[in-house]
Amino acid sequence: MAAGWFYLSCVALGAMGSLCVLFTTYWMRHWRGGFAWDGSLLTFNWHPVLMVAGMVVLYGAASLVYRLPQSWLGPKLPWKLLHAALHLLAFILTVLGLVAVFYFHNTGKIANLYSLHSWLGITAVFLFACQWCLGFSVFLLPWASAWLRALLKPIHVFFGASILSLAMASVISGINEKLFFSLKNGTQSYKELPSEAVFANCTGMLVVAFGLLVLYILLASSWKRPEPGNLTDRQPLLHDRA
Amino acid sequence: MAAGWFYLSCVALGAMGSLCVLFTTYWMRHWRGGFAWDGSLLTFNWHPVLMVAGMVVLYGAASLVYRLPQSWLGPKLPWKLLHAALHLLAFILTVLGLVAVFYFHNTGKIANLYSLHSWLGITAVFLFACQWCLGFSVFLLPWASAWLRALLKPIHVFFGASILSLAMASVISGINEKLFFSLKNGTQSYKELPSEAVFANCTGMLVVAFGLLVLYILLASSWKRPEPGNLTDRQPLLHDRA
Repeated sequence: MAAGWFYLSCVALGAMGSLCVLFTTYWMRHWRGGFAWDGSLLTFNWHPVLMVAGMVVLYGAASLVYRLPQSWLGPKLPWKLLHAALHLLAFILTVLGLVAVFYFHNTGKIANLYSLHSWLGITAVFLFACQWCLGFSVFLLPWASAWLRALLKPIHVFFGASILSLAMASVISGINEKLFFSLKNGTQSYKELPSEAVFANCTGMLVVAFGLLVLYILLASSWKRPEPGNLTDRQPLLHDRA
Repeated sequence: MAAGWFYLSCVALGAMGSLCVLFTTYWMRHWRGGFAWDGSLLTFNWHPVLMVAGMVVLYGAASLVYRLPQSWLGPKLPWKLLHAALHLLAFILTVLGLVAVFYFHNTGKIANLYSLHSWLGITAVFLFACQWCLGFSVFLLPWASAWLRALLKPIHVFFGASILSLAMASVISGINEKLFFSLKNGTQSYKELPSEAVFANCTGMLVVAFGLLVLYILLASSWKRPEPGNLTDRQPLLHDRA
């Protein structure tokens, strides 16, 4: 039964994550003019897509590598490499998303990093960078002792979940801010709830639902990778045929 | 050592929670004209104060009742009553915070519930109401079996943490939105980062730090209430003198 629920959650997660990226892309293409890389407003349009894809969806998927029952047996190193590589890819997308907004702001002589959205977002990215470097140094390089790894592992997991929470809050405040900016001079304002506003609000709610599902799978104790000594009596997902 | 860290965290939590409420109140008093209950903009000013006080600070404190080592011994009922009563008080403050913003909107013929901030906030309040009613029915009233309680307890804890995460995201998007509204027609705009903007941004970051500390204390396994059968070998906080 546990295996059935786990894989069902993974399918739901994949569908929701894909929809988060597709919906954000569609919002930017259909209502905001599409994409370019020339410092114009169309450059900015990469920002929400890359942040949702990198800092939420790929970050969330990368966090769950060790919840796959296949990762519980055999050597751990390939799974560590996959975990680190997926997070590195998520980080690269995130940095490109930041470059897009800074490029647009600097071209248009618009101030950077003044809103609470930007303060929280840049804090999340900074913590993400620290988390990746610390994780790489302690858990992937061979120098750290088993004692140090055991001490830092729950902190690594907690900060991983916290960074995702900060990313969710940044995305919500960012979509909210973008809609107030975009829908103030048009034919319809945000408060009249035109179709763009409904669509983007739903996208934001979907991002939150995706993030909460990631956190649930991450923190549900029965889906955690068993410690080495407890493998035989704590692997219900591999042997349980729902 | 564990007891020392736990009580230090509680002191930090109390200080940060108090500062969250004080800072939000000071922001509204010093820069936004103070408070009234007449449907004017001064009525709105109760909204951020009551939401931060109810939905974040008191909610967070109420969530941690079972992490107090004193709650681990003796009858559980008084602690359940305290947990439910504090959450009820948090809910009442939250509802008053909603009434303040609806009263202001309705008086000024301003649309309700159109922004993503409001969608997420009202979802958080709705889930809070469901969570309280379900918790009251299953964990406080005597009819539910031990099996049902054991089944629902991790879900109750997860939704409790999720609602706090949604509340944090709502507060961040709300402060961001309020600053864009308030600082667009004055002598200084938000992007020039006047002192009000810096102060309110810092308040938002403090709310996030408070929320993450609550989640850490809530989810850290060594600070959880031991199950009845494991009490003697799982109460490090009571016997450990740091």
